Amino acid sequence: EHIPYIHETLTLEESRQRSLEFYNLMNRRRTVRFFSNKHVPMNIVENLILTAGTSPSGAHTQPWIYVVVSDPGVKAQIRQVIEEEEEINYKKRMGKEWVADLAKFRLSWEKPYLTIAPHLILVFKEIYGFKADGTRQTNYYNELGVAISAGILLAAIQNAGLVTVTSTPLNCGPRLRAILGRPANEKLLMLLPLGYPAPDATVPDLIRKPLNEIMIRKPSDYEQSGRISEKITIENNTSNFSKENSRQYASGAPPPPPLPPALQTPHGAAQITAPKTFMVKYL
Amino acid sequence: EHIPYIHETLTLEESRQRSLEFYNLMNRRRTVRFFSNKHVPMNIVENLILTAGTSPSGAHTQPWIYVVVSDPGVKAQIRQVIEEEEEINYKKRMGKEWVADLAKFRLSWEKPYLTIAPHLILVFKEIYGFKADGTRQTNYYNELGVAISAGILLAAIQNAGLVTVTSTPLNCGPRLRAILGRPANEKLLMLLPLGYPAPDATVPDLIRKPLNEIMIRKPSDYEQSGRISEKITIENNTSNFSKENSRQYASGAPPPPPLPPALQTPHGAAQITAPKTFMVKYL
Ligand SMILES: Cc1cc2nc3c(=O)[nH]c(=O)nc-3n(C[C@H](O)[C@H](O)[C@H](O)COP(=O)(O)O)c2cc1C
Ligand SMILES: Cc1cc2nc3c(=O)[nH]c(=O)nc-3n(C[C@H](O)[C@H](O)[C@H](O)COP(=O)(O)O)c2cc1C
Repeated sequence: EHIPYIHETLTLEESRQRSLEFYNLMNRRRTVRFFSNKHVPMNIVENLILTAGTSPSGAHTQPWIYVVVSDPGVKAQIRQVIEEEEEINYKKRMGKEWVADLAKFRLSWEKPYLTIAPHLILVFKEIYGFKADGTRQTNYYNELGVAISAGILLAAIQNAGLVTVTSTPLNCGPRLRAILGRPANEKLLMLLPLGYPAPDATVPDLIRKPLNEIMIRKPSDYEQSGRISEKITIENNTSNFSKENSRQYASGAPPPPPLPPALQTPHGAAQITAPKTFMVKYL
Repeated sequence: EHIPYIHETLTLEESRQRSLEFYNLMNRRRTVRFFSNKHVPMNIVENLILTAGTSPSGAHTQPWIYVVVSDPGVKAQIRQVIEEEEEINYKKRMGKEWVADLAKFRLSWEKPYLTIAPHLILVFKEIYGFKADGTRQTNYYNELGVAISAGILLAAIQNAGLVTVTSTPLNCGPRLRAILGRPANEKLLMLLPLGYPAPDATVPDLIRKPLNEIMIRKPSDYEQSGRISEKITIENNTSNFSKENSRQYASGAPPPPPLPPALQTPHGAAQITAPKTFMVKYL
């Protein structure tokens, strides 16, 4: 029942290099709410969902269902449900504080991307399955497993040069489940539109927490990191953070990262100016 | 407050190729419960946690705290708490059905990997923060955001050639929080040991659901995929699934994938036999 685990060990230098490149790639991810209608072929979508399906899950229950909607009519139905519920959310359900918190994202109940993006991925969690005798079998930690799977999906989307909006359509679950004909043991967890950004897409100018705010070492004085400062090569004008923020960012954490070589397509490369070398201090 | 979003568009072929390679890489991930004590340098750990910190989060609250424990004494304390609680879980709290479900994983309340692995990453969710005036500020969807961030972390760990166990230590939160001195607004969500596998590590012989069980198209007849069958090159003897399962696997979903070029280190490459070409049917 157990089989040998086959592992290909990387050298430390390969491991370090790969971990840095992947960080640079993921750090360029942004939630993009302005989509182009440019088509994304289904074989790419399939590879992304297959990747999500490699996630760990409690007791290997694999409690994720990814419903991919590409038909304009069904997308329009989904948009209508979400905009109706969101308008009520904003006006009645969410409370002033929440609405104020969201103001900086310039969100509203109108979501044109729901009909513009070529695909909508509706992420369902299967809260129970069925045994051979027809009785219910609880899926342990189903929401946690589906969310981890969705995290791997977001990494796959970014790796493939596509964009999404991680969204949680509040109070829309039952109506969307009905439109999609999903059974009662599945609950909607998230909705991820999938596609390319509009050419003039903008993003809120947010900064990410520096490493010392999200990573705590215990005991803190054990084994000091060798990484006090390090050369990092970044390119200008390729950051999805403003210059102001790039400076703030560089003080506590790495600067906006270079484009990974794989994303430096012949098309995109022309926009990239000559690289500069920075010395970055780590806390 | 909004800035232009800069996107480097890949060609369709690059996008397809990258999505397939990333799937192959992620599909080799397994939960490994037998660790080597081989050291993992802190600069790699830092890159992994930085990557987790690029995750989306509800209203950009970034509600994740990654506590990294590398000290043998603290690891031993953590192991003791978890084994004590797990023994009670197995004997009293979990119920026969749950224990039976877990039998195939050969799990028990003994977790030697908790002291053998060079690092333990304890994943906390910050359920509320504080405003400037000291009052509490709820973190919307904090568990969902932390789980997505952990999914990105798992992808980063796999990409760096390291292994982990996604685990949820039941009933251990308060005691571990006390050992680590974390505040009351943080709750333990997961524990991820980090390191290399033991040379003789084994894994349960599980299979993953085929694509047609996890991806549903609505309406199902809209835009048939061009990908009815496709050449996939796989190497023998490099799969973490048994031969029996590899055959089952290949009928509904892609076969165990090739090692990505980046994982074919000089060290590991010698174990790889000549590639074979399979025709795989997609449903
Ligand atoms: C939310 C969650 C909780 C889990 N809890 C445990 C755990 O407490 N102990 C353990 O050994 N494995 C745990 N696992 C690992 C699963 O058993 C494992 O992912 C599953 O059997 C599939 O195997 P794979 O990860 O090798 O594909 C957990 C996984 C998830 C996603
Ligand atoms: C669980 C969760 C729920 C979210 N819900 C929404 C949403 O309903 N609508 C939306 O526009 N963005 C939503 N977001 C996206 C966040 O606003 C976004 O991730 C955050 O502002 C950080 O920006 P970034 O993703 O560009 O780094 C959500 C993100 C997460 C993780």
